Amino acid sequence: MSAPMKKSLVMKFGGTSVANLDRIRNVAQHVKREVEAGYDVAVVVSAMSGKTNELVAWCKDASALYDMREYDAVVASGEQVTSGLLAIALQNIGIKARSWQGWQIPILTDDAHGSARILELDGSRLMDSFSTRGEVAVIAGFQGIHEATGRLTTLGRGGSDTSAVAIAAGIGAERCDIYTDVDGVYTTDPRIVPKAKRLEKVAFEEMLEMASMGAKVLQVRSVELAMTHRVPTYVRSSFDDPADPKPGTLICGEEDIVEQQIITGIAYSKDEAQITLRRVADKPGIAAAIFVPLADANINVDMIIQVVSDDTTTTDITFTVPTADFERAKTILEGLRSTIGYATLQGANDVVKVSAIGVGMRSHAGVAARAFKSLADKGINIRAITTSEIKFSVLIDSAYTELAVRTLHSLYGLDQA
Amino acid sequence: MSAPMKKSLVMKFGGTSVANLDRIRNVAQHVKREVEAGYDVAVVVSAMSGKTNELVAWCKDASALYDMREYDAVVASGEQVTSGLLAIALQNIGIKARSWQGWQIPILTDDAHGSARILELDGSRLMDSFSTRGEVAVIAGFQGIHEATGRLTTLGRGGSDTSAVAIAAGIGAERCDIYTDVDGVYTTDPRIVPKAKRLEKVAFEEMLEMASMGAKVLQVRSVELAMTHRVPTYVRSSFDDPADPKPGTLICGEEDIVEQQIITGIAYSKDEAQITLRRVADKPGIAAAIFVPLADANINVDMIIQVVSDDTTTTDITFTVPTADFERAKTILEGLRSTIGYATLQGANDVVKVSAIGVGMRSHAGVAARAFKSLADKGINIRAITTSEIKFSVLIDSAYTELAVRTLHSLYGLDQA
Repeated sequence: MSAPMKKSLVMKFGGTSVANLDRIRNVAQHVKREVEAGYDVAVVVSAMSGKTNELVAWCKDASALYDMREYDAVVASGEQVTSGLLAIALQNIGIKARSWQGWQIPILTDDAHGSARILELDGSRLMDSFSTRGEVAVIAGFQGIHEATGRLTTLGRGGSDTSAVAIAAGIGAERCDIYTDVDGVYTTDPRIVPKAKRLEKVAFEEMLEMASMGAKVLQVRSVELAMTHRVPTYVRSSFDDPADPKPGTLICGEEDIVEQQIITGIAYSKDEAQITLRRVADKPGIAAAIFVPLADANINVDMIIQVVSDDTTTTDITFTVPTADFERAKTILEGLRSTIGYATLQGANDVVKVSAIGVGMRSHAGVAARAFKSLADKGINIRAITTSEIKFSVLIDSAYTELAVRTLHSLYGLDQA
Repeated sequence: MSAPMKKSLVMKFGGTSVANLDRIRNVAQHVKREVEAGYDVAVVVSAMSGKTNELVAWCKDASALYDMREYDAVVASGEQVTSGLLAIALQNIGIKARSWQGWQIPILTDDAHGSARILELDGSRLMDSFSTRGEVAVIAGFQGIHEATGRLTTLGRGGSDTSAVAIAAGIGAERCDIYTDVDGVYTTDPRIVPKAKRLEKVAFEEMLEMASMGAKVLQVRSVELAMTHRVPTYVRSSFDDPADPKPGTLICGEEDIVEQQIITGIAYSKDEAQITLRRVADKPGIAAAIFVPLADANINVDMIIQVVSDDTTTTDITFTVPTADFERAKTILEGLRSTIGYATLQGANDVVKVSAIGVGMRSHAGVAARAFKSLADKGINIRAITTSEIKFSVLIDSAYTELAVRTLHSLYGLDQA
């Protein structure tokens, strides 16, 4: 005789979606629509756009070497403000609501301040607030608490996406809607390829590759979490009419995608710099001698290619690092020249990594080979190649970015209407 | 054989003292001085000046009738930011420090959101942080937590003073230094009387009367708390040279003030409006008929004077209300005209209450009478008088404010060097 369990839903709104009170009122209308559709709703909000940057700048002004625990206390305040304001705006249109800070739920994290990982999220208080008080839960994203020290933590840039997916998993939500300033995930950057199409569905694995490739729609960790917990996640626009929004792009298991393309999307990243060490002694431990010092300096090495050079006792090693770490990486390696033993160090900053992603690659041979030929036909020189099960990437001169992206977009049939 | 217990100290800095990073660095220098003098230091900070007003304006924009629980979540963020920034600034000059939010200490309050009262403050975590880690505790003022609901609370405007005194009591601090933008408590407003002197010492009871009279140096509740817990409290300036600050004014028990003046200070408040009801029926219950409805409307009635009018069956009743409630009070009383039964209602908004305060009044007769004569000699008409054990107040036309304050300041010998 008990009433059927209500379905629950997580809605996440980023900084541009809550940039001012008018935008917050607009968010309240989106939430109202879902409440009226019969959902228990948890809303996760970011700081008002610009706020986090301002707070970070203050921390830097206070000390170049600021304590990350204090940084967390300072920057977490941005989301706190938005959560309270949205709760008020919801109440103002007749929707019961209350704000929740990360420590009130609680969202327990490790103590990696500034980029903490969620260890445990108990959804029971939120679910109790749904069932006994019928309240929308307005949750400050990005925040957690380290249990042993009782100190505030934050999840790193874009961490509110991760908060949202974790909460969806914690309350068993039917889905997680990530509202942003674009209306979905596209086959590639529409600024480069006007024929780029919004994807209806993307597999988790594909989205992971796209997210890490610079398609800045979703934080990588949030996609990992959604994949692990199988949370169907929509990317959609908060700028749509709240009364009649578009569906956006669903990120889901590949088993839920009936008509699978071979290639789903083309991504590119300009945040790459290439370093080549020529004529490195080809002996055991040489890779460690190069890459351990870079790892110790917190430099994230991406593509690594080793090619036997013209004489057989040495080898050429090429790899990429983030542009911001380029000079630092070169300095470290120049200092290690005698230890490593190489002839010359060459670097290039004007490179781009272009990638094609699709779970369909698993079952189709020769997908990448066709790309190499097409790029060569256009006179584009490939500096390096890496491949994985569901993607391949080429490193090329950045002047060819647009041409390469358009070429691959056409090649894999993504242009069609 | 154990080391002697270190003495502890609370330092509180208001909004203008932490208005920007330069001011916060200046505060860090003040703290450093006390650390080097051998104190365990707890610092209590307000929000950067202007911040709280901005946050309150956002709440109002979100809804005219905003939920005070959400208001608390929003406005408490201002102090959170300052606490983290000051902790970073202290670390930057080599002082160990960490920030504490009200809920981390915890400071337990009732659930009167927006003006909560502290119920319990356990100083043991702070003292542990002193003794085991030698850290300065940088505490976000103004904040508390309601234990049963786990929700953030705030202590009302000026609540950081109350936080500071409560913490001083909770950790058994030797004293509580309230740093502000003035260098102490003066015999009266120096803008009106250039000869006004900074007081070396003021009794708690006197400060209570001065605080509630519009000498806006300290929040009334913080003085009450200091008096109850006998916390010696200094009012001093954060704009002094941190290396050589002036002592400010000590607020302490009157037993600690050796040379007691009869009158310590002259205060005035323009936030008063006068209402007089003429020819009210002089019968039991008439005061209740007037003042209960005003109390129900949350209107704070101050001076009340009842005078028998020319005929013996009626009486005139005069009282004051805050200027902001003047129109509302008149409307309520006009609506109750037939219930109360009065002939006319007269109101005046251009009035001021001038008060003379001093614990010495207790042992000296005729102190107030001298004032009435002096004011009459200057042609100042007294509309109403109230007296208490350690103060008397006169209500006069506001045009005479300066003249009355100067007259009383001279009369009681406060002008002398």
